[in-house]
Amino acid sequence: MSIVITAFERSPDGGKGLARDTRVRWALEETAQPYDVRPVSFQAMKEDAHLALHPFGQIPTYEDGDLALFETGAIVLHVAEHHAGLLPDDACGRARAIAWMFAALNTVEPPILDLTIARLVEGDRAWSRERLPLVEDRIRYRLRQLSAHLGDADWLDGAFSAGDLMMVSVLLRLRASGLLDEFPNLAAYVARGEARPAYRRAFAAQQALNSGRPG
Amino acid sequence: MSIVITAFERSPDGGKGLARDTRVRWALEETAQPYDVRPVSFQAMKEDAHLALHPFGQIPTYEDGDLALFETGAIVLHVAEHHAGLLPDDACGRARAIAWMFAALNTVEPPILDLTIARLVEGDRAWSRERLPLVEDRIRYRLRQLSAHLGDADWLDGAFSAGDLMMVSVLLRLRASGLLDEFPNLAAYVARGEARPAYRRAFAAQQALNSGRPG
Repeated sequence: MSIVITAFERSPDGGKGLARDTRVRWALEETAQPYDVRPVSFQAMKEDAHLALHPFGQIPTYEDGDLALFETGAIVLHVAEHHAGLLPDDACGRARAIAWMFAALNTVEPPILDLTIARLVEGDRAWSRERLPLVEDRIRYRLRQLSAHLGDADWLDGAFSAGDLMMVSVLLRLRASGLLDEFPNLAAYVARGEARPAYRRAFAAQQALNSGRPG
Repeated sequence: MSIVITAFERSPDGGKGLARDTRVRWALEETAQPYDVRPVSFQAMKEDAHLALHPFGQIPTYEDGDLALFETGAIVLHVAEHHAGLLPDDACGRARAIAWMFAALNTVEPPILDLTIARLVEGDRAWSRERLPLVEDRIRYRLRQLSAHLGDADWLDGAFSAGDLMMVSVLLRLRASGLLDEFPNLAAYVARGEARPAYRRAFAAQQALNSGRPG
């Protein structure tokens, strides 16, 4: 086994699957690539050895022979480019699937990250409750557009792709907020993603690590 | 000439080059690809014809024969994959350049977008001034890591790549804030990007459109 990824030694979410290693695990499961996991402590993430792998001191990283990569999007794209299962064969479909990866990460995820910050980092501020509806409305704006695009289709553009993997992963962050349930076709879309055997294996593996059982 | 991109009919920044079409123009200039621009009004961006091209009603889009793409990151990556000039030839270097594209868009840009929102969208709120330092400190945290990685190198990983194009473009959004000047090697890095002939052509073209002169 030659692929090694890093993950939180103890994920802040306690194993709910929201840490970004789940996205990489899912891609590796969809493409049937075996991999090893090296857990990293919060302390070790800020030390030179890990910063040499990941300049921003985060997880996951990806190592395979001579290649060391950081950034979940880049890792998932690399896996998708080198193993069948996550990108269509035709050139136009492939480019559009990659466009949905970027849309998930650069258009849909930023307002969702803002909600996490508003709740967890700024939740104790006097103005926090007053600001929250503004943050939520920016998320709704994007969800409305995404919902209109998806319509009654199963996936964003034809068959399941790396674009769906990333979009479902990003939307999963919203589950606790209830915002996803305002858009039934998006809630069903996320449920379809979670029902995939590859996702279930990825989820179980990260959960096992976080509950201290062998992965 | 077969490549057509969209841009704001009138950019909100009045031609300072911060609209995302500048990033695509820069990629097309670095790879010596001729292109046409179709300006889109704010009204037209929300109508069905444009939403069919861009589900989130933004610019830029990219059309070339049968292919229609949205999301700046995906467009720049597509251009970089199909024309020499923006990605190294060796497989590992190529993957790392793409990792820097994702790092720019998903790790460095989100806190910078948050500053734009804090200033332009929430700037009139009673708590706006109290929150601003929190937003700025989240940007500083990422700039400090990026500055440490860059050191005294010219570019992020060897020769100039699509990763640098995207990172410089993201950092340019900070100019007015003064935050960039707290990290002299990053300010110099951005200046190196702006000095590239391809960037200067891209900047001049978007400026000409926004000042009503022919591009």
